[in-house]
Amino acid sequence: MTGRDARGDQPRESPVSVTRFAPNRHVSRPVARRVAIVGTGVIGASWAAHFLGRGLDVVATDPAPGAEQRLRADVAAHWPTVASLGLAEGASTDRLTFTADIAEAVADADVVQENGPERVEVKHALFAALDAAARPDAILASSSSMLPPSLIAQACTEHPERVVVGHPFNPPHIVPLVEVVPGERTSEDVVQRAMDFYAGVGKRPIRLRQEVPGHIANRLQAALWREAYSLVERGVATVADVDAAIAHGPGLRWAVLGPFVNQHLSGGPGGLAHVLAHLGPPTEDIWHDLGDPALTPQLAEQLVAGVDEELAGIDPADLVARRDAVLHALLAAKAGIDLP
Amino acid sequence: MTGRDARGDQPRESPVSVTRFAPNRHVSRPVARRVAIVGTGVIGASWAAHFLGRGLDVVATDPAPGAEQRLRADVAAHWPTVASLGLAEGASTDRLTFTADIAEAVADADVVQENGPERVEVKHALFAALDAAARPDAILASSSSMLPPSLIAQACTEHPERVVVGHPFNPPHIVPLVEVVPGERTSEDVVQRAMDFYAGVGKRPIRLRQEVPGHIANRLQAALWREAYSLVERGVATVADVDAAIAHGPGLRWAVLGPFVNQHLSGGPGGLAHVLAHLGPPTEDIWHDLGDPALTPQLAEQLVAGVDEELAGIDPADLVARRDAVLHALLAAKAGIDLP
Repeated sequence: MTGRDARGDQPRESPVSVTRFAPNRHVSRPVARRVAIVGTGVIGASWAAHFLGRGLDVVATDPAPGAEQRLRADVAAHWPTVASLGLAEGASTDRLTFTADIAEAVADADVVQENGPERVEVKHALFAALDAAARPDAILASSSSMLPPSLIAQACTEHPERVVVGHPFNPPHIVPLVEVVPGERTSEDVVQRAMDFYAGVGKRPIRLRQEVPGHIANRLQAALWREAYSLVERGVATVADVDAAIAHGPGLRWAVLGPFVNQHLSGGPGGLAHVLAHLGPPTEDIWHDLGDPALTPQLAEQLVAGVDEELAGIDPADLVARRDAVLHALLAAKAGIDLP
Repeated sequence: MTGRDARGDQPRESPVSVTRFAPNRHVSRPVARRVAIVGTGVIGASWAAHFLGRGLDVVATDPAPGAEQRLRADVAAHWPTVASLGLAEGASTDRLTFTADIAEAVADADVVQENGPERVEVKHALFAALDAAARPDAILASSSSMLPPSLIAQACTEHPERVVVGHPFNPPHIVPLVEVVPGERTSEDVVQRAMDFYAGVGKRPIRLRQEVPGHIANRLQAALWREAYSLVERGVATVADVDAAIAHGPGLRWAVLGPFVNQHLSGGPGGLAHVLAHLGPPTEDIWHDLGDPALTPQLAEQLVAGVDEELAGIDPADLVARRDAVLHALLAAKAGIDLP
């Protein structure tokens, strides 16, 4: 990467030197000035808003009719939140350009963030095009939540070493986590640059050591969902009660510190060793009693009915806005306090 | 319950009419003016601080030498947090009394909150004493996280219908969730009064429909822990990475809304039905790949080493204070916004 815009415009200062939500340990260096967004659905639009907020040039592409108009509307809708989280110097929605031509979109990009449909044949078509059109040193990152990067990179005959998964959490312009997953052929340099890039734009990247279905966080979510679905199916609790159990219970602590550190802190001077020695056996008893439901149409119907009852009279869009307002306050509180 | 202090002191206004964290739907009525805390360890002391903060009279008992001194020190340590969360009228640590005599402690209590060791024989000894000494209309609530109320109530020959589990989450003076679990012989009136009591002191009670090991929230935690432990054991992620995946990812959303509503909101106009139809099959794929580790000494050692590495140089007590400061800001943000 150079300190100069890849298109040859005038040089400018690093737009991502310090961000509010990047812990100090993540030293940021200007890995990218220009990011291409491939696929501008919900995730792509949120990524675009985030990168624009960090002062980057964003060029977006999507083959769908009306995509540019929808993208600009989505970015405008996200912008107040992005701005309230803190804009980098020079950040502007004016730095967003759009082209329906994928090759043109990625030709000058330092990083490509791909957000296409989660089907292997679609990813392969996209990555073949990206491999042919992007600069050899550009990072090709897929937002894929389920497909392994080694599989995605099979479409890249030129430079498969620059393919990684960079999996965000919805909405990417608010939630910091990015899971960086290298494939079999991904180079160490690309992994490092991807980690630096995400940290530099205020995200919290973690690096996976293996390719597994669902990466890390979706597996942890799936484990919790399984028992949540089971408790409703067994008649132990309503959907609303399960939601309350998390949102007014352990979910609060998980928003601040992860499961291991929270367990450690609950153990007093003995810490996690004490907890595992004393609560390990009852925890294993619970493990043996956990449900193993099948997601049948009947169960799905029961869960949907439970949510409908819980949210009766509440407008979902309004609730998203309220949730995000709390998330904003939470992130601001976390940014002001040194946490692991 | 009367509007008059059970000891015959002068009448006073309900101390728990409105609390900051009790959603409006929980109409509070003065179920209790005097609470007995049986067992004044970590949980008991936190309960004591919380009830005092809500303006109640608290009488505590514990057979351990030096228990009163430790309790008063713990309550004093919690008081700034309790006060910052908002004190009820008349709330004062002066309303705390202590006696080593369990019968004297509970004789005039409207509610007894028991926090003894998690062993059946200890619970049975305690509840036999409580049953003999408490008023017939007093609620006998156990903080037990693992023992079912039907088993606990076996010790009560007089009035087993007033025994419930009222399981809090650590620390009870901050985390709102209380799981109310009726036993086979618990009366409907007692369950309702227990729900009203906890809601009235600013907690978020949920009522379980069945007695199951770990109630609800600890089962959901155990499900997540199992996969967390497994990911470390399999070498997919470090302890620190798993912690980051939750605390900077889905944990943030779970602090605001539960797993069902968050899934529902991620589905756009189609809501949870759309999510389950499209993400159900990949979620089931993940379920089939989830780990099933045994909590061996080797695995425990690996997890402890991971936490030690993650927290190297960080003082645990200091980290608890920082976590609780964020929790406080989070609860304040949630209190200002109408959420399910």
